Amino acid sequence: MSWSRKDLLDIQSLEPEELTTVLDTAQAFKAVGQRAIKKVPALRGKTVINLFIEPSTRTRISFELAAQRLSADVINFTAEASSLKKGETLKDTARNLEALNADFIIIRHSAAGAPHFLARVLEVHVVNAGDGAHEHPTQALLDVFTMREKKGRLAGLKVTILGDILYSRVARSNVWALRKLGAEVTLCGPPTLVPPAFARMGCRLTHNLTEAIADADIINLLRIQHERQRKSMFPGLAEYTRLFGIDRARLALAKPDALVMHPGPINRGVEIDSDVADGDRSVILEQVTNGLAVRMAVLFLINGGKAPPPAPPATPAPDAP
Amino acid sequence: MSWSRKDLLDIQSLEPEELTTVLDTAQAFKAVGQRAIKKVPALRGKTVINLFIEPSTRTRISFELAAQRLSADVINFTAEASSLKKGETLKDTARNLEALNADFIIIRHSAAGAPHFLARVLEVHVVNAGDGAHEHPTQALLDVFTMREKKGRLAGLKVTILGDILYSRVARSNVWALRKLGAEVTLCGPPTLVPPAFARMGCRLTHNLTEAIADADIINLLRIQHERQRKSMFPGLAEYTRLFGIDRARLALAKPDALVMHPGPINRGVEIDSDVADGDRSVILEQVTNGLAVRMAVLFLINGGKAPPPAPPATPAPDAP
Amino acid sequence: MSWSRKDLLDIQSLEPEELTTVLDTAQAFKAVGQRAIKKVPALRGKTVINLFIEPSTRTRISFELAAQRLSADVINFTAEASSLKKGETLKDTARNLEALNADFIIIRHSAAGAPHFLARVLEVHVVNAGDGAHEHPTQALLDVFTMREKKGRLAGLKVTILGDILYSRVARSNVWALRKLGAEVTLCGPPTLVPPAFARMGCRLTHNLTEAIADADIINLLRIQHERQRKSMFPGLAEYTRLFGIDRARLALAKPDALVMHPGPINRGVEIDSDVADGDRSVILEQVTNGLAVRMAVLFLINGGKAPPPAPPATPAPDAP
Repeated sequence: MSWSRKDLLDIQSLEPEELTTVLDTAQAFKAVGQRAIKKVPALRGKTVINLFIEPSTRTRISFELAAQRLSADVINFTAEASSLKKGETLKDTARNLEALNADFIIIRHSAAGAPHFLARVLEVHVVNAGDGAHEHPTQALLDVFTMREKKGRLAGLKVTILGDILYSRVARSNVWALRKLGAEVTLCGPPTLVPPAFARMGCRLTHNLTEAIADADIINLLRIQHERQRKSMFPGLAEYTRLFGIDRARLALAKPDALVMHPGPINRGVEIDSDVADGDRSVILEQVTNGLAVRMAVLFLINGGKAPPPAPPATPAPDAP
Repeated sequence: MSWSRKDLLDIQSLEPEELTTVLDTAQAFKAVGQRAIKKVPALRGKTVINLFIEPSTRTRISFELAAQRLSADVINFTAEASSLKKGETLKDTARNLEALNADFIIIRHSAAGAPHFLARVLEVHVVNAGDGAHEHPTQALLDVFTMREKKGRLAGLKVTILGDILYSRVARSNVWALRKLGAEVTLCGPPTLVPPAFARMGCRLTHNLTEAIADADIINLLRIQHERQRKSMFPGLAEYTRLFGIDRARLALAKPDALVMHPGPINRGVEIDSDVADGDRSVILEQVTNGLAVRMAVLFLINGGKAPPPAPPATPAPDAP
Repeated sequence: MSWSRKDLLDIQSLEPEELTTVLDTAQAFKAVGQRAIKKVPALRGKTVINLFIEPSTRTRISFELAAQRLSADVINFTAEASSLKKGETLKDTARNLEALNADFIIIRHSAAGAPHFLARVLEVHVVNAGDGAHEHPTQALLDVFTMREKKGRLAGLKVTILGDILYSRVARSNVWALRKLGAEVTLCGPPTLVPPAFARMGCRLTHNLTEAIADADIINLLRIQHERQRKSMFPGLAEYTRLFGIDRARLALAKPDALVMHPGPINRGVEIDSDVADGDRSVILEQVTNGLAVRMAVLFLINGGKAPPPAPPATPAPDAP
């Protein structure tokens, strides 16, 4: 199936076939990252602008590298939402970037819906790199990509997402992607942070860790964001770790081939113990590698590229320049 | 006519023929921005350094993209003037950048004359990206480019510049460019902010908005810079808007084909109303697009490129990498 | 001799032949910086990440340009050590960058040994861009490169290093490089800042400026870092200048062909007088130029490039794009 959307705004509105197209395309791009020359000319002469109104060094770098490896030119535009508001609306900023003949705007914003708004008012391609507590579609795509690669399938896979579900765009996008692709999803965390509404999406909800991980194939941990958690909703950090932190003993309650995932950056000793993070059941760093492949695939597809993509390796550069 | 200057420091010292050379060259580069592959090899292997001692995300990005589309390598060097002063003089900083075999230094500085100073002590090409309240030559070039493109001529064109003339490098550069190219210029604003000295450059001065815009072909609004305006010189914001803000009713006082320009970022509801900013008489976003073409032309010309420049489009990249 | 190390971590562990290999390779790359097209394809499709946990605009730019001129893709990652510590360990940050298929991590860190630590836990190439008061190997390489180029030899050359030896990674790396290559080293500064331990490395120590510079071929001044010098160890600035600052009168005490070097940025009127900094005995700006060549050589060699490198100039780009 080929791709026909101008933008990547969320997972919710995608068809299962579209998700599969991204995953298959990403598989081909993953190979590019392992070549001696990690570059393809697909977006040569195109301009990608990273519009990061909420700071995120890792996601920004992943998109920046994805664009570079597609041979695009990349511009970083980072700003505090507050200072932006002072002088200029988001729409004006974005339309100015479009007027520079930009081809892609990758937006990270603290307000849910900001990417959708831009997609409506702009003609350039818009990619959501995380909007408030709404969605983070490329994170979900790299997560399901990793699961499919490791477990060989998504249909029927048992995935447990653990942590602050309520405020997590990662959880929200993961649930959409997993349900569309036929996985069984369990959400687990403190009662205040697991909204009952997710049951309507076919998720199992629980506040009991042992029950949540007993038969899971995948345990996807969410990052505890010290600074963001609301005091009234969130137990203390030590309390959270005691109830929901994953260490070696807890992991022993899961199936012997259950894998541990985390969107990063990890808080060692809080939601994940170092034994687990660095153990052979963790695929956390592979998620990072896969994120690059998924983002290359997304940029390639919304630019109109046809899947399946990259074929033969580029000619290596001569050793002596 | 071909170009023979090493630097672009101001509009004041340019001949009308030189201005026209830049405009004609920019016309050719504007087409590059509309190609599928927005890149030409003119500055391949050259190094452009954006030395922005005063912050300006937009102008920096416009120059960065201009350099990238000419295939140059670009380095961003941004610093607060104060921290620079602490350790190292501007001259030392710039000579260090030159010692890195830089080819171009694009400088934005809060001190008038900083680019001229650098041009004297350096051998690399220097481009003024705005110096204090002195000049902002590429802004004036993109403004007159837009006027010429829209109105078909500059000689005899009636241009009104509206706002804080006194502290505006945009106004200063515009007046030079417009007068050299034969346009008639009216300056309008609060009495404290329209210096009588401009009359000597052949400008008409007025503090009456209706009179200023009645027969204008172009109304070029200056940005009100909240933080910079001096209290003793500047009425309150609401007062300014009441007297000089341009809304639909005010615009009706001008000729039906008068166009509205603004160097951006705009303050909606202050110097310009949203109806006007987003209306069909506004060419504000086209100015942004033209700015890129003008900056490509400037870099191309001072590097020794011959006008007229870019001809056939580059070969498109194959779809599948 | 060819190079076989994965990383460049320090000068201390290098063999004299390895130092000479870098210098010879840098000589070839220096020519690249003087071409019309300052670019070779040696690292095309490779990714270089500047991981600067301690700020340093100059060194970062020098590495960034070196990577660009080798045709690599470059990502800048800068962070305050403190904010990094809050969320994530250095090891986790670096392993995440490695997971993005980075090929090189260039690290500047306030902690001595940080690059060595990364080199042990990562498979990518690691380059030390300065670690605490430990080493700054590329600075030493560019210093000895400049000395060899100017004086035609290093064996038997008399080099005086002047200033705060105790806290200087530049001094430490210089001493290692100079002693390994047969130069005679004198260290001079206030008694609290010239550690006796250096005598064991074969250095002459003195607190008498006249004695230190009388027979020197090279006087290498260290930067006085106002903010970093410890009060209990360091005399006041005026006192330092009076005792150890180099002005024209002091320079007259040295041999007539003695050269003055400084790693920059210089403090005019503190450790060096403007007459000397801008005089014909100063090679400070040539050090900057040579730094770029040395850093290109280092990236080229640790990537597996064979010395001697770059031969014929690239084909010039056509004038009109």
